[in-house]
Amino acid sequence: MAGASIVVDISKFRDGAKSQQEDSIAVEEPLELQLCSRTATDSAAKSISITMRTPGDDIDLALGFLVSEAIIQHPDAVMSAVHCGEIDPDSGSQNTIRIELAPDVPIDLDRLQRHFYTTSSCGVCGKASIEALRVSGCSPVDSTFTVPRAVLLGLPEKLRENQQVFDKTGGLHAAAAFDSQGDIVVAREDVGRHNAVDKVIGSLLRDGRLPAGELGLLVSGRASFELMQKALVAGMPMLAAVSAPSSLAIKLAREFGVTLVGFLRDPNFNIYAGGERISEDV
Amino acid sequence: MAGASIVVDISKFRDGAKSQQEDSIAVEEPLELQLCSRTATDSAAKSISITMRTPGDDIDLALGFLVSEAIIQHPDAVMSAVHCGEIDPDSGSQNTIRIELAPDVPIDLDRLQRHFYTTSSCGVCGKASIEALRVSGCSPVDSTFTVPRAVLLGLPEKLRENQQVFDKTGGLHAAAAFDSQGDIVVAREDVGRHNAVDKVIGSLLRDGRLPAGELGLLVSGRASFELMQKALVAGMPMLAAVSAPSSLAIKLAREFGVTLVGFLRDPNFNIYAGGERISEDV
Repeated sequence: MAGASIVVDISKFRDGAKSQQEDSIAVEEPLELQLCSRTATDSAAKSISITMRTPGDDIDLALGFLVSEAIIQHPDAVMSAVHCGEIDPDSGSQNTIRIELAPDVPIDLDRLQRHFYTTSSCGVCGKASIEALRVSGCSPVDSTFTVPRAVLLGLPEKLRENQQVFDKTGGLHAAAAFDSQGDIVVAREDVGRHNAVDKVIGSLLRDGRLPAGELGLLVSGRASFELMQKALVAGMPMLAAVSAPSSLAIKLAREFGVTLVGFLRDPNFNIYAGGERISEDV
Repeated sequence: MAGASIVVDISKFRDGAKSQQEDSIAVEEPLELQLCSRTATDSAAKSISITMRTPGDDIDLALGFLVSEAIIQHPDAVMSAVHCGEIDPDSGSQNTIRIELAPDVPIDLDRLQRHFYTTSSCGVCGKASIEALRVSGCSPVDSTFTVPRAVLLGLPEKLRENQQVFDKTGGLHAAAAFDSQGDIVVAREDVGRHNAVDKVIGSLLRDGRLPAGELGLLVSGRASFELMQKALVAGMPMLAAVSAPSSLAIKLAREFGVTLVGFLRDPNFNIYAGGERISEDV
């Protein structure tokens, strides 16, 4: 897929040795779906969904979404499906799909808009929301928080020890807040990774620990834009993920001074942003 | 966490031997978040979010969601946070949280409701939507589709061969439609697993292959309610997942006659529903 990955300069640690390398990153960009139907006097396109997706097969994605929502069942229901809008300078992708439905497709656009939701791990969406975070007063994280490398490498094992339900079911994501000594302050599980993170942040709020400038956030899976946004809003200076980060998570981390660690699997890990918060071992 | 897992009778295949066993399953249930604020003349609670979550730490989840959405920053912003609504007979959980904000918390409930979305992989939500699927004419899948056991076990390897972007980035989910010979009809990748599935379904729509009564759906990760709902709406008689299914995915599969396979990792797999579509090897 063209535009599905980009190359980014990162720091890799392999068995204690650090190197600067180029790495391929899965692209995450918002896709807006607009519908228009000429049944009524009003033929303007209306936005019915925004989802964070990897560019490529966008029209299939939009059509499949309409099938999943039981809006269309047959290809004849679609008059046209085209990309529109600006071309993203980084990924080269266009992030809006406009679909014109056949006049006989029954559809209540107002109802759809009222029930507008994204089926994505979305947070607020993409570029617009990086801007929104800036406007709403989210400023770059200012924290002296650091974690020694050996402490960082030991975190996933500690998280697993806290995953009671995963042990039983093999089916849950986990998230935790950790301090600079590597102690787990709070750990939570959920079928949704964003929920596991919200549970951690809610617990920190109750304990009067927000903004959490001296705590990092650890997640058992991938680091998406949404999880990075949650760490940022909670004032956390570090997000460490056991799996891969997305392109937009890296962009957000670099713009707001959050440290982003990925593929954290002892004895290896990658640093995508803010390496100064990971100290040499003493 | 109480209510975070349930025990279900399933069929397990281990190295060719079949047994009937109890298995622990991660619970997936909808959680509705209602906000009320006594600033205005109107003090009624308004629903601002529904998310699919694992019961447990629900209040932390709701509070963390409000922090993530930049609605609250401090525990004093919350006057009360309580469970309400009916108790689910299966999981014993209550699936609504009502939060009363302090009078001085600025909040525009109408705006929130307009921008109502779930940050979850949600589809339509939970119990209500099992009912909605029934009412909207989704009937149990009627298909003679079968797959030999050996063919099923070979599917994940074939999916990996189709994962071009994952090979580069390690950061993408994949989904594919397969036929009864185990041939991959279409495979798609995305940072969001629901998007990968929508891309597959959109491609099948364009090719005039919906409803896809003679194709199964294969996913690289977990089987949530949402993915099962997508398979059902597309008329697919089987969902096979490399990782764990959720409780609600199993319930939906059993109610609508869809075959659900999980932990598909050669030479092992589990059958959660509809085992009659998996044939003995010849």
